[in-house]
Amino acid sequence: MATINMNFQKLASGYLFPEIARRTKVWQESHQGAEVLRLGIGNTTEALPPAVCDAMKEKIEKLSDRATYSGYGDEQGDTALREALVRYYQRYGVELKSTEFFISDGAKSDAANIQDLFSSENVVAIQDPAYPVYVDSNVVAGRTGLFNKEMGLYDGFVYLSSNEENGFIPSPPEQKVDLIYLCSPNNPTGAVATHAQLKAFVDYAIKHKSIIIFDSAYSEYITEEGYPRSIYEVEGAKRCAIEINSFSKFSGFTGVRLGWTIVPEELECEDAPSGLLNSMWNRRQSTFFNGASNIAQSGGIAALEGDGYDQSRALVEYYLENARIIREGLEKIGLTVYGGVNSPYIWAKTPNGMDSWEFFDILLDKCHVVVTPGGGFGPAGASFVRVSSYGHRENVMKAMAQIEENLQV
Amino acid sequence: MATINMNFQKLASGYLFPEIARRTKVWQESHQGAEVLRLGIGNTTEALPPAVCDAMKEKIEKLSDRATYSGYGDEQGDTALREALVRYYQRYGVELKSTEFFISDGAKSDAANIQDLFSSENVVAIQDPAYPVYVDSNVVAGRTGLFNKEMGLYDGFVYLSSNEENGFIPSPPEQKVDLIYLCSPNNPTGAVATHAQLKAFVDYAIKHKSIIIFDSAYSEYITEEGYPRSIYEVEGAKRCAIEINSFSKFSGFTGVRLGWTIVPEELECEDAPSGLLNSMWNRRQSTFFNGASNIAQSGGIAALEGDGYDQSRALVEYYLENARIIREGLEKIGLTVYGGVNSPYIWAKTPNGMDSWEFFDILLDKCHVVVTPGGGFGPAGASFVRVSSYGHRENVMKAMAQIEENLQV
Repeated sequence: MATINMNFQKLASGYLFPEIARRTKVWQESHQGAEVLRLGIGNTTEALPPAVCDAMKEKIEKLSDRATYSGYGDEQGDTALREALVRYYQRYGVELKSTEFFISDGAKSDAANIQDLFSSENVVAIQDPAYPVYVDSNVVAGRTGLFNKEMGLYDGFVYLSSNEENGFIPSPPEQKVDLIYLCSPNNPTGAVATHAQLKAFVDYAIKHKSIIIFDSAYSEYITEEGYPRSIYEVEGAKRCAIEINSFSKFSGFTGVRLGWTIVPEELECEDAPSGLLNSMWNRRQSTFFNGASNIAQSGGIAALEGDGYDQSRALVEYYLENARIIREGLEKIGLTVYGGVNSPYIWAKTPNGMDSWEFFDILLDKCHVVVTPGGGFGPAGASFVRVSSYGHRENVMKAMAQIEENLQV
Repeated sequence: MATINMNFQKLASGYLFPEIARRTKVWQESHQGAEVLRLGIGNTTEALPPAVCDAMKEKIEKLSDRATYSGYGDEQGDTALREALVRYYQRYGVELKSTEFFISDGAKSDAANIQDLFSSENVVAIQDPAYPVYVDSNVVAGRTGLFNKEMGLYDGFVYLSSNEENGFIPSPPEQKVDLIYLCSPNNPTGAVATHAQLKAFVDYAIKHKSIIIFDSAYSEYITEEGYPRSIYEVEGAKRCAIEINSFSKFSGFTGVRLGWTIVPEELECEDAPSGLLNSMWNRRQSTFFNGASNIAQSGGIAALEGDGYDQSRALVEYYLENARIIREGLEKIGLTVYGGVNSPYIWAKTPNGMDSWEFFDILLDKCHVVVTPGGGFGPAGASFVRVSSYGHRENVMKAMAQIEENLQV
């Protein structure tokens, strides 16, 4: 008699973005012909860099000829890509070995799967609000109790509230925790941690033999000085932190799928001497994964250097300009906004403490603009919405005009 | 104090193929200049179908233009691909809904991850020998005890011995089990289950409310009548079976990465009414995965119909001809061989019951040919080697000539 993994039953609700898609679809069906402008999901909209396209087409040419065809690659990723990433990190003064990089089909998969390395008994600290994948993957793995509907939180997690008071960057927890998920530049708040703020977490982790899972998927959006692009810019981080990043938001690979995870050889925890976690992740990926698409990997190599890098940077600048337009537009109508300077996301406070799903519905219904309700990222997001700068410039401007015209704050 | 998932420590040894690669590398380093012919890993060698390449290049063209660019697709896969798969199964008289298909980055990932849906208490039946991913993923998930070195088996699994006596297709177990992994055409033995043999498992599963995880990654290699290409050709299978398949061996997508899993709506188990497992896998994929590469998916659509289908079929025929050459060559020198008719794999008995790793070393050292030691798939494979038909024809012929010349049985 097969029985199910009951932890799935604990999951509070459908994944946030499918729920937004569902609500939007329902609205559209009752408003035939109305154009909906989407500033919700962080989904890239501009063309792939030409150098990336050329590299991927060249790879397909090779695959179309038996003399240059290749089948399975290494589960850990192409050596050329891992070595290009070594050089990429050297730009920020971070020295890593190619064997510390593991190429994947994207940061989401890695962010969800990384917890597999750790005991189900481990206590997990999560920022509130947070990217739902950190939460849901640990719920499914059994590291929580039930969802407390009244609180909007799971029993068993330690939540690190990210709020206006702390500038959306929490301090390390008071109590001992085992795993800590951090995301900077932050999704959804757009806040970015300083060197000192990250150092406080690294010091905490070394002291308590905790592991930090650092999601830096938006690192290329940092424009101001003094904010680390990699946690390994902080001394000691290789002993206690795993870093996850992606080509999605840098080079427009959201649909192409390519990311990477760094598990330093020095990484250690209570019952794992340095080297063991690196080899465990190697074994995990060799068993549960068969490498990222070789075509995507060819594109990734092109994105990291030369024209491909410059063209990817231009994409980031484009979205950052959208972010500026959104931020200034929302400020103009009187909303309090955060983020959008070192991040593609603007974190806008709802008027008069309105619930974020209510504000979502108003923006959809009155302005025909889709945003992401902050409550979907955790209770501390309940009076915010996340506005994404991923969109065609003309649509972003149209959305802002409609918000300015139809929304009274 | 973070602590590790101790189940990783139970894993008996490195994943089979890395171990083969390691031994081969060591041999090559001491035999500079010697050419090694690889009939080990089931790794495709012939060019991708032209129609598939055209479709993928066309997709890249679309991604290079902001008017036709697309970002994240549905986690479950493109509707067009899911619908093409519906039509593909209709060829075999199997009616499925597009919402029962989940597109992935390959059968290996799905075969490893599917166990996530089920309780860690479930008892798992596995063919011996078997593809190591079924075994290792369940070890990591905690469904076994320790590895028993003397037996070469994990405590806690129910092993279904696949041997010469039963034609390498076992009967359902005597005792009650919860999850049953079946692979037909089988990797590694090349055996293929008849309708009656599969029906015995389906009847067993319905009676005991067990779930069959059916790996049909080699279904396109079935050439003889009377062997189901899909388990859903067997009445009742939708109530008790999940099917996993891939474009890797049909269309040469080993490096491109694309596969699919079918979770029928009718599927049910002890505590899951029909519909629940389908929605759980949907939730799992939406949380732990972000969709297969859109470029690969465009190729997959092309592979299923028209020229792409015919060209993919021609690839299969090419490898099947290799299989015939290998099978007949090994028989000629006096080895007892199985498989290779409805499968790309030949399962060859070692001479005089020799251990498979020993025979591997002899074939490498004397004939410069790499095969896969059967013992790597489980103790019942200890006196067999798997010979793969994936290779250039000229290399397959050269390998067979070297074996004929240098191996005395």
